[in-house]
Amino acid sequence: MNIYATEKSQQYLAKVTSFINDKILPIEAELFIENRRLNHNSDWTQWQLLPQIEALKTQAKAEGLWNLFLPDAELAKGLTCVEYAPLAEEMGRSLLAPEIFNCNAPDTGNIEVLYHFGDKQQQQQWLTPLLAGEIRSVFAMTEPDVASSDATNMQATIIEDGDDVVINGRKWWSTGLGHPNCKVMIFMGLSHSDAPKHQRHSMVLVPMDAPGVSITRMLTAYGDYDAPYGHGEMELVNVRVPKSNVIMGLGKGFEIAQGRLGPGRIHHCMRAIGAAERALSLAIERGQSRVAFGQPIIKLGGNLERIAQARMAIEQARLLTLNAAWKIDNLGVKHAMTDISAIKVVVPNMLTQVVDMAIQMYGGAGMNHDTPLAGFAAMARSLRLADGPDEVHMAMVSRLELAKYK
Amino acid sequence: MNIYATEKSQQYLAKVTSFINDKILPIEAELFIENRRLNHNSDWTQWQLLPQIEALKTQAKAEGLWNLFLPDAELAKGLTCVEYAPLAEEMGRSLLAPEIFNCNAPDTGNIEVLYHFGDKQQQQQWLTPLLAGEIRSVFAMTEPDVASSDATNMQATIIEDGDDVVINGRKWWSTGLGHPNCKVMIFMGLSHSDAPKHQRHSMVLVPMDAPGVSITRMLTAYGDYDAPYGHGEMELVNVRVPKSNVIMGLGKGFEIAQGRLGPGRIHHCMRAIGAAERALSLAIERGQSRVAFGQPIIKLGGNLERIAQARMAIEQARLLTLNAAWKIDNLGVKHAMTDISAIKVVVPNMLTQVVDMAIQMYGGAGMNHDTPLAGFAAMARSLRLADGPDEVHMAMVSRLELAKYK
Amino acid sequence: MNIYATEKSQQYLAKVTSFINDKILPIEAELFIENRRLNHNSDWTQWQLLPQIEALKTQAKAEGLWNLFLPDAELAKGLTCVEYAPLAEEMGRSLLAPEIFNCNAPDTGNIEVLYHFGDKQQQQQWLTPLLAGEIRSVFAMTEPDVASSDATNMQATIIEDGDDVVINGRKWWSTGLGHPNCKVMIFMGLSHSDAPKHQRHSMVLVPMDAPGVSITRMLTAYGDYDAPYGHGEMELVNVRVPKSNVIMGLGKGFEIAQGRLGPGRIHHCMRAIGAAERALSLAIERGQSRVAFGQPIIKLGGNLERIAQARMAIEQARLLTLNAAWKIDNLGVKHAMTDISAIKVVVPNMLTQVVDMAIQMYGGAGMNHDTPLAGFAAMARSLRLADGPDEVHMAMVSRLELAKYK
Amino acid sequence: MNIYATEKSQQYLAKVTSFINDKILPIEAELFIENRRLNHNSDWTQWQLLPQIEALKTQAKAEGLWNLFLPDAELAKGLTCVEYAPLAEEMGRSLLAPEIFNCNAPDTGNIEVLYHFGDKQQQQQWLTPLLAGEIRSVFAMTEPDVASSDATNMQATIIEDGDDVVINGRKWWSTGLGHPNCKVMIFMGLSHSDAPKHQRHSMVLVPMDAPGVSITRMLTAYGDYDAPYGHGEMELVNVRVPKSNVIMGLGKGFEIAQGRLGPGRIHHCMRAIGAAERALSLAIERGQSRVAFGQPIIKLGGNLERIAQARMAIEQARLLTLNAAWKIDNLGVKHAMTDISAIKVVVPNMLTQVVDMAIQMYGGAGMNHDTPLAGFAAMARSLRLADGPDEVHMAMVSRLELAKYK
Repeated sequence: MNIYATEKSQQYLAKVTSFINDKILPIEAELFIENRRLNHNSDWTQWQLLPQIEALKTQAKAEGLWNLFLPDAELAKGLTCVEYAPLAEEMGRSLLAPEIFNCNAPDTGNIEVLYHFGDKQQQQQWLTPLLAGEIRSVFAMTEPDVASSDATNMQATIIEDGDDVVINGRKWWSTGLGHPNCKVMIFMGLSHSDAPKHQRHSMVLVPMDAPGVSITRMLTAYGDYDAPYGHGEMELVNVRVPKSNVIMGLGKGFEIAQGRLGPGRIHHCMRAIGAAERALSLAIERGQSRVAFGQPIIKLGGNLERIAQARMAIEQARLLTLNAAWKIDNLGVKHAMTDISAIKVVVPNMLTQVVDMAIQMYGGAGMNHDTPLAGFAAMARSLRLADGPDEVHMAMVSRLELAKYK
Repeated sequence: MNIYATEKSQQYLAKVTSFINDKILPIEAELFIENRRLNHNSDWTQWQLLPQIEALKTQAKAEGLWNLFLPDAELAKGLTCVEYAPLAEEMGRSLLAPEIFNCNAPDTGNIEVLYHFGDKQQQQQWLTPLLAGEIRSVFAMTEPDVASSDATNMQATIIEDGDDVVINGRKWWSTGLGHPNCKVMIFMGLSHSDAPKHQRHSMVLVPMDAPGVSITRMLTAYGDYDAPYGHGEMELVNVRVPKSNVIMGLGKGFEIAQGRLGPGRIHHCMRAIGAAERALSLAIERGQSRVAFGQPIIKLGGNLERIAQARMAIEQARLLTLNAAWKIDNLGVKHAMTDISAIKVVVPNMLTQVVDMAIQMYGGAGMNHDTPLAGFAAMARSLRLADGPDEVHMAMVSRLELAKYK
Repeated sequence: MNIYATEKSQQYLAKVTSFINDKILPIEAELFIENRRLNHNSDWTQWQLLPQIEALKTQAKAEGLWNLFLPDAELAKGLTCVEYAPLAEEMGRSLLAPEIFNCNAPDTGNIEVLYHFGDKQQQQQWLTPLLAGEIRSVFAMTEPDVASSDATNMQATIIEDGDDVVINGRKWWSTGLGHPNCKVMIFMGLSHSDAPKHQRHSMVLVPMDAPGVSITRMLTAYGDYDAPYGHGEMELVNVRVPKSNVIMGLGKGFEIAQGRLGPGRIHHCMRAIGAAERALSLAIERGQSRVAFGQPIIKLGGNLERIAQARMAIEQARLLTLNAAWKIDNLGVKHAMTDISAIKVVVPNMLTQVVDMAIQMYGGAGMNHDTPLAGFAAMARSLRLADGPDEVHMAMVSRLELAKYK
Repeated sequence: MNIYATEKSQQYLAKVTSFINDKILPIEAELFIENRRLNHNSDWTQWQLLPQIEALKTQAKAEGLWNLFLPDAELAKGLTCVEYAPLAEEMGRSLLAPEIFNCNAPDTGNIEVLYHFGDKQQQQQWLTPLLAGEIRSVFAMTEPDVASSDATNMQATIIEDGDDVVINGRKWWSTGLGHPNCKVMIFMGLSHSDAPKHQRHSMVLVPMDAPGVSITRMLTAYGDYDAPYGHGEMELVNVRVPKSNVIMGLGKGFEIAQGRLGPGRIHHCMRAIGAAERALSLAIERGQSRVAFGQPIIKLGGNLERIAQARMAIEQARLLTLNAAWKIDNLGVKHAMTDISAIKVVVPNMLTQVVDMAIQMYGGAGMNHDTPLAGFAAMARSLRLADGPDEVHMAMVSRLELAKYK
């Protein structure tokens, strides 16, 4: 219970919670088994969608629980960042939920880019089917050959050539690349290497079937391909698309990236908080039901203190994230820079700790696929690197802190 | 910047900040030196007040910056818990400030007890001079011979005898006992050892000069007597006071203790957050001005990450505390039990870390009396024990967490 | 460099190091790719051996770098626990190495059981081919339905029936169960439920093809099946083997388990230390070669401090383990109980930290299968649960500590 | 029990242990009270020696338990670094013990400097009375106006002038400066500012009563003056001493400092380990004897795990230190550089943790002067800064680590 809740938000929260509790969680384990049966292999060209997931998407859409992340009142429900936050948390409780509500990364971020910065034609072609959940997309930014934590290292190029741009480069960790419905990427590259540092890059929409685009492989994250989404590595060789695919015009890459930044972080972090709540809940249930040395294991050693520490860490991380969301809504992203970097560090590390505790309470069952815990652990680990490692965000926080003294 | 601020609160905050910046901080170091000159000895009977502090109290009172913690609109300014919180934080920046604004523990807590639970006569005799800052008081709860973290261990007795009660027992860590103006204690003891667990104890007002009261010694906290306040040990042997000194009636000790609980925690924690802000600020100033190996030391090793971690920890601790205050104001203490225990763990530990970092950045000067850092460190250490050790509060948090699953 | 090294040990160390550097590491990455191509699927009946591994085994055997863990001078080289320790560390640098030297768990532990406690016939049938590396084995102890950290929870039964014993029960996390060469298990179960606590259990040799044994499934550990070894779940229904398969006689299960304990821990821990050294080395190489913000990333933020902390943690963990080995050799397992529990806690947690740091330094590449880091991370996570969770071993350490005060 | 023990070492250990147990510990508390009565004030000119300490020194000397740290077989017992280490640990259990055995810092370090680098005349004048325990000395290195963690920042000057040198500068944190018997300092300053970096400094013997030497004040360390030793600040204005007071000749300051380094670190760290053992022991005794919520408090929450963690941390820190000592003895200081920096970080941080745990177990009594815990806490805090902060030593460890890759 906190000050950030609004009536509108609480209404949607109740619906989302019911949907997840009634329709997703009861079949979650079985869907994971089915997915492993179908998709546990390295050949992404064979990956298949689960029809049950598709059916749930249809239901969620029908119930109006769809694209809730989008602040637009017509295309969605017009929820503010702080209003959507508890819904994102709720969805984070199950690794399956975000896609079912059409609220999964990176599509949410890509939708926001198209919504805020795309032109009419781009929106018609890509935003509409994305909002409908008919296609999926990737965000192609990270590169294998350089330290991508420093965006100025980027090597991929987007070169004007008449009415086209020609794209070359290698990208990896493009999440969702293996998905059967993945049809388009937002590709970031260097277009003006001589321009001022933050005007050198551009973002361009590239259809997955454009000639010259090839998927090299899918990458495991902690041993798992995360099929049917996948984290892919790809190469673009002399890929030619019309200039009209460039978003906002050449040289606007950083500007768009900044705009994509704030709400996306809130979503990621709130989902991670939901995952932490689920992990804590699993830990408590397991700890109370298993017995060792004559007691429920939750009473042994420091286990109860670890439960308390998890609760305290989750509460703090949630308030920090909600406050960041509140600032984005009320003061603007520029006045929330410390907060947006801080949650990027605090929340994934908190999730790492809480999940680790839950696995330790679970014993062996915590590591295998009988619970979502190992999946949460891999997600937490990825989140400490994705979108910039902890270290880059701590550097940002300290830079802003020192700036107060000038 | 956060959602909890109100206009009223911001107005008082501006005034308190100016007062501290203009009148206290400029002479803080010199007052510490003067205090050490006068009072750095173990003989508390010789301790003296600093006239400069008395003068500042008079000024603060004149400016209406007085008893701001008290929610009463006539006796004070009618600030809610969440409105007073940022003022307490501000006062926490200097170890001298709380007393100057008549907002220092344990007097604030004792004032609240008298305000909420005292009868008219008790209020006239003790509340009035306390609110005027003319006398000081102690809270006599912790005992040397038992683990006081379990209140049911308490051995001191308060026995009815006609129109009087007769008090026997030893208490220690009674903060403020050595202060020249200390005139009264609220003493907690066992009055009905056969009653149900939470109706066995009583609280009684005992004048310091009552026959049978003797101060055994002052205790050092990390080598310091904290003169002219002191943390004292005392013995009460057959101390006889009229029954009218009992607060709320015999057997009401726990009930009063509960009532004293919530806002007091907020005050303590917000002051600690202010201390952490001051420590962080000192760390940054030192780190930027000292040079080693060719660089300001703040740029060496992991120092900037530590600055970031301090900032992130402080923000989280503050939001957790403000949210607890908000719950107390809006939902009542009973709906804030997890929060009130959580902040008792989180905030002093956060302060411990931040101060430790600041001392490490300062080098030797961080340990001696040239900065308030060593004082903050001792305060942080004490707060992890005072009013129940971390472990007791973590036990409370986990108990409440598990209760959700029943 | 430390006091524990002997000349004999150093000689073998040099040979093992050369073998690993010259023959294993250069093809490690390619073998991992090949293994993923062949074996990355959940159907363990299709898992295949890599011929390159088999060839390396033949070479290691030919060079006398075989079964070095076994203290027997004829069957192996007669190395003491402290002499073998640095070899185990060296092998731990590559996840492929232990099997190549026939020094991999759980075969080493099972070999030790047969060597110390098996009778002639048992040794002929199973020890000989295990020492030859012709077959592999599993250790069936952990059960899915109870908290196996408390061995007295065990539910599987081994019931005398004439000249046979009849076995029933479910086991899981039996490592190596999916391996094509896995031919035998050492199965632990309850044979005398009325006997004193430590005489209730027995260990019996069960051929994998005994009627009634069925593998239920393989378990993922952090998303990976660890093919072609696997961690399996199995069911034994009325499995009947001759009483001569019982090791040491019925009721001796705990006694054997204790004997299996000490050296096995040393092996596990030293391998983990080798993994940590490899991870640290990878972190340094990556950190020096990648550039961000104008500097090698190892120089950014707190990275160099993390390198130092890794070095300090590894050194301490190694000395603790070597000292435990020295005690086992010189004073006996019974005088090394604190040490054997302590390393079980300290080393896997140290490895967890060091690998986590290395992954963070690597960025995305640290999480996928291009480096051994994700494999080490999963291994570290498993080791914090396998053979008793951290908490059980900390309880043992504190129990022994308190016993000094009686 | 470990491999480093020798028979000779064990013999002295038994004697030192008896002396401490029989003669020091029984009166330790009473001596602390007496010392506070006599010396708890800021006027160091009034500080007095405790006659009981002087009497114990006489006894220790008579029993041959004197100067044991000195490796010389005639002047002392010829113990190696690794042989003396357990004796230093034993002495570390009581803050009073080191001086009683004439093994306290900084006199030990100063004695070593005079022993290794002093000329005959210097030895006669200062080494002899120091070895006899008749006088005390300080080491004047740290300066208030610069970051002394970088020795090249040093501003004090030692200028040749005919047969004399003339000394100017301010120093602080000179431990022992307030002691009534303090007669001489080893002063380090800049003599050749144009020379190569490590030949610019010199060390010179300066009698405390030399004209121009003035003590400015004593510094509190966490609120305590540590009387009758004290940590002092002083100023030297045109202090003139004969050139024969220069140790080894001008420009040799760094060389001497390096030589002073290794064994001194071992001594400091082993004493800290002894303090940790004492703290752990106090924690256990308190935890077993106090009862809360129906149980000895050591059984509540995570307390037993904390005991285990303390034991594991102490063991590791001790082995790391003993191994460093073994390297100094067997390979020389130059081959132990990583180790000597590592223990400087590891041991004080371990002590900080263990003492903090013990204080938390003790409750209020852990913070005041009834136990040695607050003293140990201040010592641990100081040790993380003295002789270079953690950060400088971590930088050294990482630098040496990276050097392996060149």
